[in-house]
Amino acid sequence: MRASVLRGGRMVVRDDVPEPVPGTGQVLVAVKACGICGSDLHFAGHGADLIELTSQIEGLPAMSGELDLDHDVFMGHEFSAEIIEAGPATQTHPPGTLVTSVPVLLSPTGVEMIVYSNNTVGGYAEQMLLSAPLLLPVPNGLDAKRAALTEPMAVGLHAVNSSRITQGDTALVIGCGPIGIAIIAALRHRGVETIVASDFSPTRRALAATMGAHVLVDPGDGSPFEACAPAVIFEAVGAPGIIDDVLRRAPAASQLVVAGVCMPPDTVHPLYAAAKQINVQFVFGYDPNEFADTLRAIAEGEIDVAPMITGEIGLDGMDNAFHELANPEQHCKILVTP
Amino acid sequence: MRASVLRGGRMVVRDDVPEPVPGTGQVLVAVKACGICGSDLHFAGHGADLIELTSQIEGLPAMSGELDLDHDVFMGHEFSAEIIEAGPATQTHPPGTLVTSVPVLLSPTGVEMIVYSNNTVGGYAEQMLLSAPLLLPVPNGLDAKRAALTEPMAVGLHAVNSSRITQGDTALVIGCGPIGIAIIAALRHRGVETIVASDFSPTRRALAATMGAHVLVDPGDGSPFEACAPAVIFEAVGAPGIIDDVLRRAPAASQLVVAGVCMPPDTVHPLYAAAKQINVQFVFGYDPNEFADTLRAIAEGEIDVAPMITGEIGLDGMDNAFHELANPEQHCKILVTP
Repeated sequence: MRASVLRGGRMVVRDDVPEPVPGTGQVLVAVKACGICGSDLHFAGHGADLIELTSQIEGLPAMSGELDLDHDVFMGHEFSAEIIEAGPATQTHPPGTLVTSVPVLLSPTGVEMIVYSNNTVGGYAEQMLLSAPLLLPVPNGLDAKRAALTEPMAVGLHAVNSSRITQGDTALVIGCGPIGIAIIAALRHRGVETIVASDFSPTRRALAATMGAHVLVDPGDGSPFEACAPAVIFEAVGAPGIIDDVLRRAPAASQLVVAGVCMPPDTVHPLYAAAKQINVQFVFGYDPNEFADTLRAIAEGEIDVAPMITGEIGLDGMDNAFHELANPEQHCKILVTP
Repeated sequence: MRASVLRGGRMVVRDDVPEPVPGTGQVLVAVKACGICGSDLHFAGHGADLIELTSQIEGLPAMSGELDLDHDVFMGHEFSAEIIEAGPATQTHPPGTLVTSVPVLLSPTGVEMIVYSNNTVGGYAEQMLLSAPLLLPVPNGLDAKRAALTEPMAVGLHAVNSSRITQGDTALVIGCGPIGIAIIAALRHRGVETIVASDFSPTRRALAATMGAHVLVDPGDGSPFEACAPAVIFEAVGAPGIIDDVLRRAPAASQLVVAGVCMPPDTVHPLYAAAKQINVQFVFGYDPNEFADTLRAIAEGEIDVAPMITGEIGLDGMDNAFHELANPEQHCKILVTP
């Protein structure tokens, strides 16, 4: 079958990938749509650094599977798919059912994230394996493309759930890439009354307004903290220096939710945060309930993700898409439809 | 009257300081005991840096009073004192009453912290002014020396109150200087069942045990995270690199309470914190209720602060004490009894 794989920092189409064979508890599916995540772009450019840095972290459960960047890497974790067939002795929905799932593959040898792997195929492929107990049928006639947005939108919901925002609070979202937009949508869905969105890009600011932001700020015109005094600041940029700037400018007793993942070491002034007793909540991913809640909200039309989909490509368009996504003026979410 | 003032980085005794005159709402008191705070040592060495760095912080209420390091600076904010007389039209307790207070002076021109000032005398003096509405009579026959520990112990209570620790959780306290010890005492008072204390100094570890720590760790023998998996980590060192080390080693979903104030810029890896969704709560000071709760707990014998008092000096001993306090083997809290 065909798949687009990461090889030497570039996305390469292969047509000789063996069709995956579902084991017990697993289901073979045909990928219908898979979003390109910014973390995949980052991994393509800095995978070795990420592996090295992650290896230093203590206190995390060990994941099965070694990763070798000298071999092809399968990626793609924002997918919707149609069931083809279940593995032996496995109960699941009928063939043809449109599903999505948290990107986790259960197997007799352990739990594997469907994110970067030399062996486990992800959503940048014609077919992949999913875990029967984790499948969520896509309800309400929602199409496969919108359903593929469940994963990134769940990241936004989790960031909001992890914060202490209340409806009457002012929220400031710094950075209106896909994660910032997902946070804005979740804040609006939650009923937060004042959502301020900050981004240098007019295109992204316009999308932020479409997705629910009440106030738009161009940080090129001045700090967003001149425009508002937020109770909670969502940082969705992930570049060095942003955290320290927020700590210096944020109101006393505010909360900073760090949703952007800054890979390089970053410099902060703890005194800024101490003087104002700031709370900093680092967030990552979502839990299965948040994923299911997000799918339901999209399927029932409570969150319209269509404006976020700015491109659609085949597997052979991925390498070009990785380049195009570097330009924030052009795209929010590009879907691969294998 | 006599006072010890900061002049050119050293503590100098003056005997020509004008006796303060209480205004309406103010009370003249005779200082009975005043603890030397590590922040005063730090200010003596790095006051200009602190003023510059603090001036960069936005979102803080403006404090009245400019500070000029070319003139004498009054300090001393951990005091107990006896009432001498009230200002005009001011109701207060009878003369001779032993009191303490949050270190704040109310006046017609505003609110001033009693911490560093060219004009407002602090506790390193024979007499000072306090605010009648903020005075707390020292109850239960508690002596003036123990009463002077109310302020630093309130810092510990506030750190614990600001955390999400519960009785069944494991708490790790990194650094057993006065703030770390105050946190340990507050954790023990709260009934936290597993308090792990980490410090390179055997003297400080012994004091930590006396004040309530259940497990003692010498970080020279290995990371405290090899000895426990804390739900909440209290950082009471305030040196560069500690925060990043905690983020790298701490358990997933744990909370880091930063009670040590690190003045220099510090380097962190946001990825460490993101991968484990760590919450970081920066804390500073206390509120008036916490101050009053602390005084009550000390006065009723629920927290015995006597083991923390390792020295007692007069005003003329302060310059020497500032040097001695740099050695953690020798002292926890030195009291000035003017």
